[in-house]
Amino acid sequence: MAHILVLNGPNLNLLGTREPEIYGSTTLADIESRCADRARDLGLELESQQSNSEGALVDAIQAARERCQGIIINPGAYTHTSIAIFDALAACDLPVVEVHLSNIHRREDFRHSSYVSKVAEGVICGFGADGYEMAVDALARILAQGGQA
Amino acid sequence: MAHILVLNGPNLNLLGTREPEIYGSTTLADIESRCADRARDLGLELESQQSNSEGALVDAIQAARERCQGIIINPGAYTHTSIAIFDALAACDLPVVEVHLSNIHRREDFRHSSYVSKVAEGVICGFGADGYEMAVDALARILAQGGQA
Amino acid sequence: MAHILVLNGPNLNLLGTREPEIYGSTTLADIESRCADRARDLGLELESQQSNSEGALVDAIQAARERCQGIIINPGAYTHTSIAIFDALAACDLPVVEVHLSNIHRREDFRHSSYVSKVAEGVICGFGADGYEMAVDALARILAQGGQA
Amino acid sequence: MAHILVLNGPNLNLLGTREPEIYGSTTLADIESRCADRARDLGLELESQQSNSEGALVDAIQAARERCQGIIINPGAYTHTSIAIFDALAACDLPVVEVHLSNIHRREDFRHSSYVSKVAEGVICGFGADGYEMAVDALARILAQGGQA
Amino acid sequence: MAHILVLNGPNLNLLGTREPEIYGSTTLADIESRCADRARDLGLELESQQSNSEGALVDAIQAARERCQGIIINPGAYTHTSIAIFDALAACDLPVVEVHLSNIHRREDFRHSSYVSKVAEGVICGFGADGYEMAVDALARILAQGGQA
Amino acid sequence: MAHILVLNGPNLNLLGTREPEIYGSTTLADIESRCADRARDLGLELESQQSNSEGALVDAIQAARERCQGIIINPGAYTHTSIAIFDALAACDLPVVEVHLSNIHRREDFRHSSYVSKVAEGVICGFGADGYEMAVDALARILAQGGQA
Amino acid sequence: MAHILVLNGPNLNLLGTREPEIYGSTTLADIESRCADRARDLGLELESQQSNSEGALVDAIQAARERCQGIIINPGAYTHTSIAIFDALAACDLPVVEVHLSNIHRREDFRHSSYVSKVAEGVICGFGADGYEMAVDALARILAQGGQA
Amino acid sequence: MAHILVLNGPNLNLLGTREPEIYGSTTLADIESRCADRARDLGLELESQQSNSEGALVDAIQAARERCQGIIINPGAYTHTSIAIFDALAACDLPVVEVHLSNIHRREDFRHSSYVSKVAEGVICGFGADGYEMAVDALARILAQGGQA
Amino acid sequence: MAHILVLNGPNLNLLGTREPEIYGSTTLADIESRCADRARDLGLELESQQSNSEGALVDAIQAARERCQGIIINPGAYTHTSIAIFDALAACDLPVVEVHLSNIHRREDFRHSSYVSKVAEGVICGFGADGYEMAVDALARILAQGGQA
Amino acid sequence: MAHILVLNGPNLNLLGTREPEIYGSTTLADIESRCADRARDLGLELESQQSNSEGALVDAIQAARERCQGIIINPGAYTHTSIAIFDALAACDLPVVEVHLSNIHRREDFRHSSYVSKVAEGVICGFGADGYEMAVDALARILAQGGQA
Amino acid sequence: MAHILVLNGPNLNLLGTREPEIYGSTTLADIESRCADRARDLGLELESQQSNSEGALVDAIQAARERCQGIIINPGAYTHTSIAIFDALAACDLPVVEVHLSNIHRREDFRHSSYVSKVAEGVICGFGADGYEMAVDALARILAQGGQA
Amino acid sequence: MAHILVLNGPNLNLLGTREPEIYGSTTLADIESRCADRARDLGLELESQQSNSEGALVDAIQAARERCQGIIINPGAYTHTSIAIFDALAACDLPVVEVHLSNIHRREDFRHSSYVSKVAEGVICGFGADGYEMAVDALARILAQGGQA
Repeated sequence: MAHILVLNGPNLNLLGTREPEIYGSTTLADIESRCADRARDLGLELESQQSNSEGALVDAIQAARERCQGIIINPGAYTHTSIAIFDALAACDLPVVEVHLSNIHRREDFRHSSYVSKVAEGVICGFGADGYEMAVDALARILAQGGQA
Repeated sequence: MAHILVLNGPNLNLLGTREPEIYGSTTLADIESRCADRARDLGLELESQQSNSEGALVDAIQAARERCQGIIINPGAYTHTSIAIFDALAACDLPVVEVHLSNIHRREDFRHSSYVSKVAEGVICGFGADGYEMAVDALARILAQGGQA
Repeated sequence: MAHILVLNGPNLNLLGTREPEIYGSTTLADIESRCADRARDLGLELESQQSNSEGALVDAIQAARERCQGIIINPGAYTHTSIAIFDALAACDLPVVEVHLSNIHRREDFRHSSYVSKVAEGVICGFGADGYEMAVDALARILAQGGQA
Repeated sequence: MAHILVLNGPNLNLLGTREPEIYGSTTLADIESRCADRARDLGLELESQQSNSEGALVDAIQAARERCQGIIINPGAYTHTSIAIFDALAACDLPVVEVHLSNIHRREDFRHSSYVSKVAEGVICGFGADGYEMAVDALARILAQGGQA
Repeated sequence: MAHILVLNGPNLNLLGTREPEIYGSTTLADIESRCADRARDLGLELESQQSNSEGALVDAIQAARERCQGIIINPGAYTHTSIAIFDALAACDLPVVEVHLSNIHRREDFRHSSYVSKVAEGVICGFGADGYEMAVDALARILAQGGQA
Repeated sequence: MAHILVLNGPNLNLLGTREPEIYGSTTLADIESRCADRARDLGLELESQQSNSEGALVDAIQAARERCQGIIINPGAYTHTSIAIFDALAACDLPVVEVHLSNIHRREDFRHSSYVSKVAEGVICGFGADGYEMAVDALARILAQGGQA
Repeated sequence: MAHILVLNGPNLNLLGTREPEIYGSTTLADIESRCADRARDLGLELESQQSNSEGALVDAIQAARERCQGIIINPGAYTHTSIAIFDALAACDLPVVEVHLSNIHRREDFRHSSYVSKVAEGVICGFGADGYEMAVDALARILAQGGQA
Repeated sequence: MAHILVLNGPNLNLLGTREPEIYGSTTLADIESRCADRARDLGLELESQQSNSEGALVDAIQAARERCQGIIINPGAYTHTSIAIFDALAACDLPVVEVHLSNIHRREDFRHSSYVSKVAEGVICGFGADGYEMAVDALARILAQGGQA
Repeated sequence: MAHILVLNGPNLNLLGTREPEIYGSTTLADIESRCADRARDLGLELESQQSNSEGALVDAIQAARERCQGIIINPGAYTHTSIAIFDALAACDLPVVEVHLSNIHRREDFRHSSYVSKVAEGVICGFGADGYEMAVDALARILAQGGQA
Repeated sequence: MAHILVLNGPNLNLLGTREPEIYGSTTLADIESRCADRARDLGLELESQQSNSEGALVDAIQAARERCQGIIINPGAYTHTSIAIFDALAACDLPVVEVHLSNIHRREDFRHSSYVSKVAEGVICGFGADGYEMAVDALARILAQGGQA
Repeated sequence: MAHILVLNGPNLNLLGTREPEIYGSTTLADIESRCADRARDLGLELESQQSNSEGALVDAIQAARERCQGIIINPGAYTHTSIAIFDALAACDLPVVEVHLSNIHRREDFRHSSYVSKVAEGVICGFGADGYEMAVDALARILAQGGQA
Repeated sequence: MAHILVLNGPNLNLLGTREPEIYGSTTLADIESRCADRARDLGLELESQQSNSEGALVDAIQAARERCQGIIINPGAYTHTSIAIFDALAACDLPVVEVHLSNIHRREDFRHSSYVSKVAEGVICGFGADGYEMAVDALARILAQGGQA
């Protein structure tokens, strides 16, 4: 039975409390729980982690190499600045799906580029909390196809 | 019963015959038919159009204003160059979901920016033909929520 | 009796129905009719065309070479991207007046440059539908002066 | 009875004597007088000022706040460099029409951008001395409509 | 017997009538006829098309995939702006020779880059109408060598 | 009684020992103690934190949301690179005063831009350790005015 | 007894009347008077000047060399464009404190850079009229320390 | 007998008192007097002006059109920012020699470009006060040759 | 009888031995001999030179002014960096045809621009050794037409 | 007896397991052990640390100030983004040798610049694990010479 | 027995006489002799060349193809500008080690990029004359491993 | 008795024969002879060299270190591209005067920057052949003042 990791970056722990007009009112725990349900339905085991620290996110990705078959990541603000996370994802050699709650292309210019997109199979952005479930579905299909979108 | 338009831009009519290592072997007709099935299951009526002409795509978007409640668009190469399509989408004032078969952020630099993303609710890229069905699902949810992701 | 062409680009057929707070509520037919009246008062014959297609606009400009003595053009979104329209205007060798309903310099950055301005005698922007009548007047004066502002 | 200010920037006092192939042979006094006539016909009172000094132009704009209902400005070379004039116009909160004798988009690259355009209702360029009268007409219409183009 | 397509983009139908000091006085029909003769001498069948529309050029390239073994293209103004034509050429997977009548590197800056060059076997520019015959010769040699320069 | 947080970023713990010609010889403990005194005089309670870790700074800002009414931050090197800190400050929705010991505009180019300035009420730089006390005063006034400078 | 000059640039004479949501409702006379009071308390004599003219500001700075021991300057729009004021301040060789009413880093991009910051001891921005008093305090401390922050 | 104008821009009145390691200890009066002597030896009459105001420099250039046959200008900081001075020099249509005391190419990047150089016959920089006498000699030769270097 | 020079730049002497997948296996001697044959058939006398030195190439171009009526040049790596070769070609005032073995527009970015193209009548690239013979033909036609393409 | 610190950044703990075609199969423990041996031979004591966290690397550098005489650092992905590490190294005022396993100049563009190089005595890249021993040797020589290369 | 070439570019012949604070006082002859000794110890034969001419360096690299198994190069100022040397090194297909005496990343911006690094196995900079011996060692190891670092 | 070197770069040997409307009709021999006369009058001995080769110019500068007290250089096209010449001039540590016949700031953009200006005492451009004599005079004065302008 395949394991997948849902990894959330900085400030996503505030979800449901912060600028709800942009991010919606669902909490991160809600999202993780909905994702776990969905994963279970698809025959996958799902674990979740969140950190505000770039280094801790790198640690989590490295740890996933041993234990997981795929990663769903919303790198938050590190999307645009972290080569270290890009390197960790490249090194772990697992299929990666990138998710963003908001449509980052409609926000400030400095949110338009993503290091993570260069290593992700696919990207989903702008669908709020639903995007995570879409990512679970997509990753399940990718794993079923042998790991590539 | 809500109508949605699936609109494909230049060269997507070649799907299934062109560079299958990038775009997969499914034809555009296959995709349109799978999307129509999915839409029917979700209680939506779906129509499909494809054109290689920027002007014809603008025409199709304008026509959709009267008849449709949402648009799924893969603008192909016009993604990166067409302000006219951006203006047409902005003017039609319907929820828009942008789809790309490949992960455009892993391809040439000139494919990294999108005028359409500035007006879309959300963007899905890199999941091949599956991305269209994800878009139908997402648009159905958006319509159920009153038109915004 | 001199003929002039009023040529409108993509999405201008939506005029009066689209974002009236930016473009006003006058329709394109209203504008064309007001321009025709004005032209008649000035002893000019005026014909109007609109297209969403860059190629069709190029065709129309080429056709005007035979039949017209001057062109008023609002190239819409193609203002900023079309070298083909620029080339067609340069080739037709008629006096050109460029019009924009809104003040494009107060909008998005990608609307601040114009290929058409490089070949136009003069540019009028920000005066809404009135700008077209100003353009008819200006073109009449230019024609009276032998074709240059 | 509404008052409007026609304000001309550096080197425009040389009009009629300087590079007539670009600017025409009409003097600034001619233009001011034609504008005053036109304004009178439209029921407006018009005053004119010219200065080579950026600070004096800022002073004039500030003074106009008390006395005038609209401004026609040809900022000359300060068009492209003066944030102070931009600030003064924004602070005076009157409708502004920007005029240029030549089509600045066909000249050197450093003449292609305008701070003043960011605050003007509309812009008229390339029609020589006629552009000022067009501006008087346009400003009259704007004032008749309550101050916005 | 191999077929080749000679495809001309916007405004090239004006050839022989437009700015002869840059493009020469030969008409497009003359060029097409000289190319056809040359092709016949080399044992090739040649067909010609011209369009002012980007979409129609994409259509023509797609159609050529079935019927032709090579393409000579002068994309005119679309050279510098059309990713759609680039994609169509890449998808058709035929040897492509790019021709320009003038030396585009001696003209305006915006004519110095070419999307089409990224997919062409070779490029010929600056030799006027002769460049097309040079292209026929070159394409014949490429076809004789199995499709690559 | 209002609480405020004084938050210092990477390498500021070295204060008083490092490059005193740029940063002065006062230690961070001195600064924190002077700020606490000043705050007490103004009827505020002040707590201080320092970390070299971007993630820990984000954690501290998030924690401040519950407990504090304002933040004084010297983000050190993260000023110029951390979107995560910018996001955390935006999410905590408290008035923020940004302080720098040195005048960052007189140092290397890469120190001239600040993500934090985009979310701060005001910025104080170049006044050495005194700048922190100025910030306490300013924040006190802002809080007295209801949270905006 | 040390003299200091408070120098205000273009449009700051409008203070209290112009865009109060950005600049507050205090007039420049109010600010100058509060600064003079504060200075007197600190044993300093303060004089104030304002001009809309770049040249007059240069003159004022040059004149201050003889008579003053420090300068507080809000260069307004010239902040971003005037090398002449930068040169005058460098030549006068007095400690300079730069003040801005609003946080210029939260406004248009062209307000993010400052020539004056390259020569100022320190910069204070975003604290409205209070910023001037903070500047008086800071300059007093700098003078007490022998002229450097 | 030919007249020439020596025109100095902002802060050059400080010469001999300001940063002598860059500009030398000669005063502007010394330079003007040495230039006048040199001019007299060469049969030329020379007048001198200095202003810190861009507008006053434009005025002086315009006035020179009537009275002078050539201009030597050190525009100081306006070298790099003033299109108005560039326009005035272009309009006055006299031979212009540009002088800088220091070698501006060895100083800050923002001093490396010059609007005035685009209209000057020649440029002399880096030779201190001697550069002015070199300019007088050069202008005398240019006038003897009919006005062009 | 007209003379033409075939001039090859750095590393082209390695032809046939270096990266044959890019440049083919023909040696430079082969190319020169094929060109000489072709030239003879067309009634031209052809001489060839190659050098790895920019200065020697400039010398060769200068020498050609006396002796030749046209130049075919493949400047190799100096294409992209040598203003000296550009100047020499401009000074020699002979028709120039630029040749590249590979399609430089499909290689690294730093090979996409050419100083030589700014002075060449025409450019041929991507046709391997055949490009030289095409150049001989083209130059012959240019000479027959009086020296311009 | 001098102490030196070997400090490795993010993802270098994966060494020997990750993309061996780029980084080789030696583990980080192997490298640290080989470096310790080499150091011992040279009369130096060597300690090693690795962290995925930017903040922890800053902490380690600060701690080294007390205990070490030199630092060898491979900052991994933080090479290109961390001003905080740059500041920490500058503050610790010890000789620094920068090492990279791969030649970063042959990889993606975003790996071509290094903040650390601005403060390092020297840089060694592209020699795989051997580069660390080269760094130990070099640092030993630098220490023997009093701390500068 | 393997041969290696040590190749030095422009101005390196001045070594020991020029700006010793940057480059040290060792002469080039000293360095070459130390390298030869080192090479001999490692069982390699070493020859040295220096030239101020880009072309001569290209010649030397080409000649090395026949006679040598590896190259150590300090291209001096040509590091940053010579595509011809880059091409020659790529064509010679030998392992290349790039050396710089100073840390080029701490010098002027125009010394931060290197064409040679794109083709070198590894780069050593900032270690003065010692860097050459490090390069000999490194090249010996590379040759022992079959030619790649 | 001081020696000075007059060094001319590529294509300057063509002087008097090439584009006389830009460079005048005087030959290089004329210039060298006039300079030698002038130098003799000023008690200096002058020698002249010209080369089209960057390397030879570097050689000449290096040789001048022993024999000369100052250098006048017109680096021609190498002005804008040669770091090697910049390095040689910096290493020779003699006063350098840079001369250009034409005003390079009025020509193509790529002629607006100069590496040599960064090391020259002063620059003279746009005065044709007279500029060389001005340079001799200026260098004489610089030598009389001990080597700095």
